[in-house]
Amino acid sequence: GDDSGEKDGPKSLSELMADRQEQAEKSVLISCPSRTSEKKFLKFLSKHGDINKHFFYESYGVYAVVEFARRDSVVSLLESAAIPNVNHECMVPFKSRLLSLSNQSSAASPAQQPRLPCRPQTTIAINELIQRLSREDSVDDQMGALTEAYQLTEENSRLRFLVCSLLKDVAAAYFPECTIRPFGSSVNGFGKLGCDLDMFLDLDTISGWNFKPPKSGLSLEYQMKRTNSERHVTQSILSVIGECVDHFGPGCVGVQKILNARCPLVRFAHQPSGFQCDLTANNRVAMKSTELLYLYGELDPRVRRLVFTVRFWARAHGVTSSIPGAWITNFSLTVMILFFLQKRSPPIIPTLDRLRDLAGPADESVIEGTDCTFVSDFSKIQLQSNTDTLEQLLGDFFEFYATFPFSRMSINIRKGREQNKPEVAPLHIQNPFETSLNVSKNVNTSQLDRFVALCQESAWLLQQGEARTQRGSGGNCMDNPWGLATLLLPSKVAGIKGRKK
Amino acid sequence: GDDSGEKDGPKSLSELMADRQEQAEKSVLISCPSRTSEKKFLKFLSKHGDINKHFFYESYGVYAVVEFARRDSVVSLLESAAIPNVNHECMVPFKSRLLSLSNQSSAASPAQQPRLPCRPQTTIAINELIQRLSREDSVDDQMGALTEAYQLTEENSRLRFLVCSLLKDVAAAYFPECTIRPFGSSVNGFGKLGCDLDMFLDLDTISGWNFKPPKSGLSLEYQMKRTNSERHVTQSILSVIGECVDHFGPGCVGVQKILNARCPLVRFAHQPSGFQCDLTANNRVAMKSTELLYLYGELDPRVRRLVFTVRFWARAHGVTSSIPGAWITNFSLTVMILFFLQKRSPPIIPTLDRLRDLAGPADESVIEGTDCTFVSDFSKIQLQSNTDTLEQLLGDFFEFYATFPFSRMSINIRKGREQNKPEVAPLHIQNPFETSLNVSKNVNTSQLDRFVALCQESAWLLQQGEARTQRGSGGNCMDNPWGLATLLLPSKVAGIKGRKK
Ligand SMILES: Nc1nc2c(ncn2[C@@H]2O[C@H](COP(=O)(O)OP(=O)(O)OP(=O)(O)O)[C@@H](O)[C@H]2O)c(=O)[nH]1
Ligand SMILES: Nc1nc2c(ncn2[C@@H]2O[C@H](COP(=O)(O)OP(=O)(O)OP(=O)(O)O)[C@@H](O)[C@H]2O)c(=O)[nH]1
Ligand SMILES: [Mg+2]
Ligand SMILES: [Mg+2]
Repeated sequence: GDDSGEKDGPKSLSELMADRQEQAEKSVLISCPSRTSEKKFLKFLSKHGDINKHFFYESYGVYAVVEFARRDSVVSLLESAAIPNVNHECMVPFKSRLLSLSNQSSAASPAQQPRLPCRPQTTIAINELIQRLSREDSVDDQMGALTEAYQLTEENSRLRFLVCSLLKDVAAAYFPECTIRPFGSSVNGFGKLGCDLDMFLDLDTISGWNFKPPKSGLSLEYQMKRTNSERHVTQSILSVIGECVDHFGPGCVGVQKILNARCPLVRFAHQPSGFQCDLTANNRVAMKSTELLYLYGELDPRVRRLVFTVRFWARAHGVTSSIPGAWITNFSLTVMILFFLQKRSPPIIPTLDRLRDLAGPADESVIEGTDCTFVSDFSKIQLQSNTDTLEQLLGDFFEFYATFPFSRMSINIRKGREQNKPEVAPLHIQNPFETSLNVSKNVNTSQLDRFVALCQESAWLLQQGEARTQRGSGGNCMDNPWGLATLLLPSKVAGIKGRKK
Repeated sequence: GDDSGEKDGPKSLSELMADRQEQAEKSVLISCPSRTSEKKFLKFLSKHGDINKHFFYESYGVYAVVEFARRDSVVSLLESAAIPNVNHECMVPFKSRLLSLSNQSSAASPAQQPRLPCRPQTTIAINELIQRLSREDSVDDQMGALTEAYQLTEENSRLRFLVCSLLKDVAAAYFPECTIRPFGSSVNGFGKLGCDLDMFLDLDTISGWNFKPPKSGLSLEYQMKRTNSERHVTQSILSVIGECVDHFGPGCVGVQKILNARCPLVRFAHQPSGFQCDLTANNRVAMKSTELLYLYGELDPRVRRLVFTVRFWARAHGVTSSIPGAWITNFSLTVMILFFLQKRSPPIIPTLDRLRDLAGPADESVIEGTDCTFVSDFSKIQLQSNTDTLEQLLGDFFEFYATFPFSRMSINIRKGREQNKPEVAPLHIQNPFETSLNVSKNVNTSQLDRFVALCQESAWLLQQGEARTQRGSGGNCMDNPWGLATLLLPSKVAGIKGRKK
């Protein structure tokens, strides 16, 4: 069952994902006239079976996500659906679980219907956030409020898994046993509403890879197209899926095949959900990084709040960006925060080496020669009792990186200690699993310098605030920004390149 | 059942095709070591269910076509098959009904096994044919022997439907209810071994096109990608299928997307069958032409023999070609032969208008505004008693077109009479269904002139032969070419552009 395990402490990411995938497989996405009667809508759909959960949201019109109790209700629903018969010959008759509801109701005029109640899938603007934060009582509360306001909602998470599931239908046409899993900030616990949807196509779930031919006698093999390298296979598959999404995928626009990147991908916008999507294949190490980040975020509630706060701060000042470039990525920044938390005394989170040592036989994971093993059972992890407040952690984080010896040292969450840089690069952060790689190889000196300058400024601003305001009385009734809010105002040190949307 | 209807006279093409499609769906294609024991092979496969029919043939190695009695035997067989595990990461794991058999047998050395008995899928060379014909007793026998030697075999026909069925699996991934049908010479009764495989993807079999929204209340429609025109839909679909065949289709090579042609198509070579394949979509008029040709070929045994002979003669002299160009096509040539047979007195075959008048309500067929109706029940067609010999027909065919007023008249099998040309073109043959089109629009004057000159020469050669040899005693024991054989020797009038392989 869905909730039965919850009393035994936090679920591992893979358990959580399995549940969400299961829900998504039983769900459909329906565009609705905004003035539909919710009651009639539910009655109409229930003809096909019981509904577990539904909600509405807005994105180029109103959409409903409907999860049935059983898979065969979806089949029944789809069988009842028509191909649009306006000019039907100009339609690619690819059937998916993305549908449109029409209302021929002549009786009640639609204008008299109340609008369907929609769950927000977008965030508040930064100015509204600054005001809201300024009404909080402490920096700790501010960091909690920021996290609350921006983190993915249950509904948004369901919608992400549903988009993966719809895309899986496209891929499963050729690889019936494949799965498409979200990874990165959609599931690592650090994603904010509106973040992109990173997905990877997993073909290792296909049966028949490890058949051993019999010692004697006859045996059968599939004839399959061969290529020079695994990379070519990935490129071929993504090329075809990209083509399908482009030509058949309803609501999928701006499809780009970026097949010559280090990690080949297909990028597109999924209009009904509003998600910017990146589909990769054969990217199981990234899934492991995601699990690791998720685990760290679950270990202590301060982790997620600090990460949310720093990621938000970085985005507000253009330290990170949605455009690829010499900027620090969210992933690099998160690893830097985890490293900082490992360096507290006592440490708030354990090192990756420690997590590997705690791993049981079931946790063993070697992906193409890379050891990605770490413990999945949270109960095995003993934390030390550190009572630092979030305010302290935030201030000290800025101090820590304002003075970090970036020129000599590499950041290493595997050991929880800085190491001598193995190679020249302005910023060196060891890839947690592929340890010979630098996850921040892209960062140039000027971006690093901006980051350091902003850390100095923010550390100073927090100290100033601490001196100025009384804790507890705080900025409670003031509309003047204080505490965390001041850190989100345009910076004085960061120059015109400062704030980005 | 399969044969139950046979006593009621010839089956219509669509009945015949339904049977062959059914067989193909239950069949697999297996590459086998040439020295496999047939008995062991059959025993091994029978684990998955009863086998209706099997045969072997050679094409880049030995292949087996195996038709099971039941569809689920194929499912069971596929479940038992492995993904090749040599360097498995460089393999596109697309599973199809194209398999490879391995033999780990250590006991009997494979060299001691006899080679598997293979059914020929290719024709004899023209020189061998000329010798063989020269041993026949009459021109009629020669025309029968030529037809026998070159017409599609039962096995080749099965293989063609199997390739369609394999390709259907690729298309059905996205359009589960689609069908892929062979058309043209693969099924019209006039195909020779080695002719190309023309296929068309039929999406009209998809359910949901004609749902009517309820007068009141809610209804659901699929969201589908829209385009400007039906042509764009066809291009999109063929583009994606072409991509899939190219990247995933085992044994499919040389994939070309020819999407801007009047009739967009994907062309590729299917190595395991040796077929050159052309896939089109939405080409139902061509299917009707095919049915019509088939019907004419079934009405009187002389039709098929005359068509085979003339088509072979034309190919031998480069009147037709496998390369597109200003040549007369096989289709045009066939229509010319049918026209000639309608002009005999009494006519050997009825006009298309007559066949349309005989049609019942079930035969009605209007495709995109084009009336393609004609009778499908052979028993309704009353033939007049014409006793012309094939020799007479062949000679008169050459005479007929040696003197036909091509410059003024159009060939029209709908009326069975020549008509004044509606437009300028060296050769005008009215398209039987799309009556405003000229099926031989591509033919230029010099190609028409060559055809006429060759008709004159062949008419003359046949008359000479008749004068020279005594009927009955014939060329029986002579190795000297005579009768039809002489018509296949390099021509004196056709210049260096004469014979083509
Ligand atoms: N090893 C490694 N993994 C990376 C790197 N960049 C991204 N990833 C992985 O890919 C995932 C998705 O990348 P992004 O979309 O750039 O980052 P994100 O964590 O999703 O954060 P957003 O910026 O919110 O999208 C990350 O969470 C990592 O697991 C990198 O440079 N090295
Ligand atoms: N209406 C029309 N149909 C054509 C034309 N050319 C081909 N077709 C149709 O398409 C089918 C396949 O074309 P081809 O492959 O060129 O001819 P074919 O009859 O298969 O003969 P082969 O030369 O043996 O391949 C024909 O049998 C006709 O039904 C044309 O110019 N007009
Ligand atoms: Mg991301
Ligand atoms: Mg053909």
